[in-house]
Amino acid sequence: MSRRIKLAVIPGDGIGPEVIAEAVKVLDAVTAAEPVEFDKTPFSLGAARFLETGDVLTPDDLAAIAAHDAVLLGAVGGVPGDPRLANANIERGLLLTLRFSLDHYVNLRPTVLFPGVPSPLAAPGNVDFVVIREGTEGPYVGNGGTIRQGTPNEIANEVSVNTAFGVERVVRYAFGVAAGRPRQKLTLVHKTNVLVFAGSLWQRTVNALAAEFPEVTVDYLHVDAATIFLVSNPSRFDVIVTDNLFGDILTDLAAAISGGIGLAASGNINPEGRFPSMFEPVHGSAPDIAGKQLADPTAAILSVAIMLDHFGLTDAAARVNAAVTADLVARTEATAPGSRSTASVGDAIVALLTHEG
Amino acid sequence: MSRRIKLAVIPGDGIGPEVIAEAVKVLDAVTAAEPVEFDKTPFSLGAARFLETGDVLTPDDLAAIAAHDAVLLGAVGGVPGDPRLANANIERGLLLTLRFSLDHYVNLRPTVLFPGVPSPLAAPGNVDFVVIREGTEGPYVGNGGTIRQGTPNEIANEVSVNTAFGVERVVRYAFGVAAGRPRQKLTLVHKTNVLVFAGSLWQRTVNALAAEFPEVTVDYLHVDAATIFLVSNPSRFDVIVTDNLFGDILTDLAAAISGGIGLAASGNINPEGRFPSMFEPVHGSAPDIAGKQLADPTAAILSVAIMLDHFGLTDAAARVNAAVTADLVARTEATAPGSRSTASVGDAIVALLTHEG
Ligand SMILES: CC(C)[C@H](C(=O)O)[C@@H](O)C(=O)O
Ligand SMILES: CC(C)[C@H](C(=O)O)[C@@H](O)C(=O)O
Repeated sequence: MSRRIKLAVIPGDGIGPEVIAEAVKVLDAVTAAEPVEFDKTPFSLGAARFLETGDVLTPDDLAAIAAHDAVLLGAVGGVPGDPRLANANIERGLLLTLRFSLDHYVNLRPTVLFPGVPSPLAAPGNVDFVVIREGTEGPYVGNGGTIRQGTPNEIANEVSVNTAFGVERVVRYAFGVAAGRPRQKLTLVHKTNVLVFAGSLWQRTVNALAAEFPEVTVDYLHVDAATIFLVSNPSRFDVIVTDNLFGDILTDLAAAISGGIGLAASGNINPEGRFPSMFEPVHGSAPDIAGKQLADPTAAILSVAIMLDHFGLTDAAARVNAAVTADLVARTEATAPGSRSTASVGDAIVALLTHEG
Repeated sequence: MSRRIKLAVIPGDGIGPEVIAEAVKVLDAVTAAEPVEFDKTPFSLGAARFLETGDVLTPDDLAAIAAHDAVLLGAVGGVPGDPRLANANIERGLLLTLRFSLDHYVNLRPTVLFPGVPSPLAAPGNVDFVVIREGTEGPYVGNGGTIRQGTPNEIANEVSVNTAFGVERVVRYAFGVAAGRPRQKLTLVHKTNVLVFAGSLWQRTVNALAAEFPEVTVDYLHVDAATIFLVSNPSRFDVIVTDNLFGDILTDLAAAISGGIGLAASGNINPEGRFPSMFEPVHGSAPDIAGKQLADPTAAILSVAIMLDHFGLTDAAARVNAAVTADLVARTEATAPGSRSTASVGDAIVALLTHEG
């Protein structure tokens, strides 16, 4: 009897549908021979849906998604500056609402420089680290406000909220990840010398948990210094744990140094499984290249690998990662790299999965 | 009759005294033939002073410094983890107190890739931009707090405060800088899709002032995307205006791509001159290499050039910049680069200044 996993699929806007089509192709191919079936329910959400109906995410949408075992998301967001979207913050109303409502407190973002992939760094070295970004607190909570808007006396505040509960659980998860990796190293990134209240909570939490994980080496970097090391010596990193905003910034930079946002995958994880976890490429909807088969689906496909890992399907995950690696090597050797359509990348990875072994 | 400028000199901790000694050497050499005299008053402040007296910055210190026309600062901060400094936040108590008390609302941080200087980027292109970082608001205001500290119910908040007054004046300054540069381009960096209250104020302020500066081309980047461009295409930037925290992060990254923090200079400017402006290298006190003549004084020397510019001594500033450029080229050509002492770099730049023309 085959295990059934209910998967909510949100292709979204822009290049989202194109990359998700390839991700689903790969998911189907890699699970064909496994005793598991992903039952997919498509959800039409994003800027297009908002323009049609005026809804970003209704309570019914949310309840329906929450009844699944996982979510696969492409990208959401309309054309920047579209006046019809001026008052719709799709990112906050959809993406962040899902992360917060589904309690995705671990935002897992691995960074690997795949063989053959060019880095903008002259000497990147061995890049293989994972950022564990807190996903439900920090400056992302939306606890701010404006008074006297539009006057010379306007004040706009943003509140970063950090709780012992929220910091402890993500730091504990990060220690667990670090303990399971060969180098067993955890770097806390924050700005403790300026954000003294939040910084103190993060630092004390790391110090306290370090005692429970004596095998893990712990260090600390200010976020500004961390950006320096990401370009001057990225191989110093193994596992980074950091808050929601710093994680947002560091993971885009990490993607940039390891071959670009087209390869950066992520998982928004609710480790206890009380809510479905959500897997998505780090890139956005890129409306300028949408519908042209120009998008690289690799990040979406690697997000499928993270999802497979999440469900304990480690073999299938490893096969996807191996096929992606092989495809990336083939790309560098190709005479005309960059000339492949979105679908042809997916097809090539499926072919590698099918013909292997 | 010679113009007299009262200069408060704060060598500070770690490598601060070493780099300031060279900066003062260069200042003296370049002004020797000018109708200007810098009257220097040394201030003993920083971790060393705190350990001796328990004071970080007394009201008397602050009043004495404020009575000067400018401040030249090396670096402050003791050995990380020194238990005697556990409850002294020298950065907040000294550096940030000076920036806030002296109303340094423009934190000016130019980034130039000097000829011959190696970048960690394989193809950096023409890097020549300036970050204008707001210096008196944002998450740096210290308006946060902790409740139930040390318990499982601890909550630690940080408030980012943004005012129309504070944003308008720094954005206006940035437009002025952009208007005076050949490319006349201004990029606002923020995170308007998440920090919607502060982001909206920044974006509306830029939009409003754009009408007053029609010659300036304006664009916008989210802070995460900005880090990608800083490593993939830094030559796209001309002038960046951003908040205190994003500016902190972006300028360290900018320093990294343009040859390292050893070359990054800055000015903390009070444009109206109601308070003395303060000039300092972006780097920290680096206690691990202090006292060994290993620090590169170039960033401190370039900060002197920004100071000279600030006082309208544009000729002298240009001469310092030219001497630094020549020294950097000579360094690359030297058989054993990196083997020069702190003082020998200062001496070489003084020699270039003296023998020129
Ligand atoms: C779209 C945006 C709200 C989002 C974030 O800031 O988290 C994105 O940048 C990301 O990193 O997933
Ligand atoms: C030392 C620290 C408080 C300071 C800052 O965060 O502003 C430093 O990083 C800088 O950039 O000047």
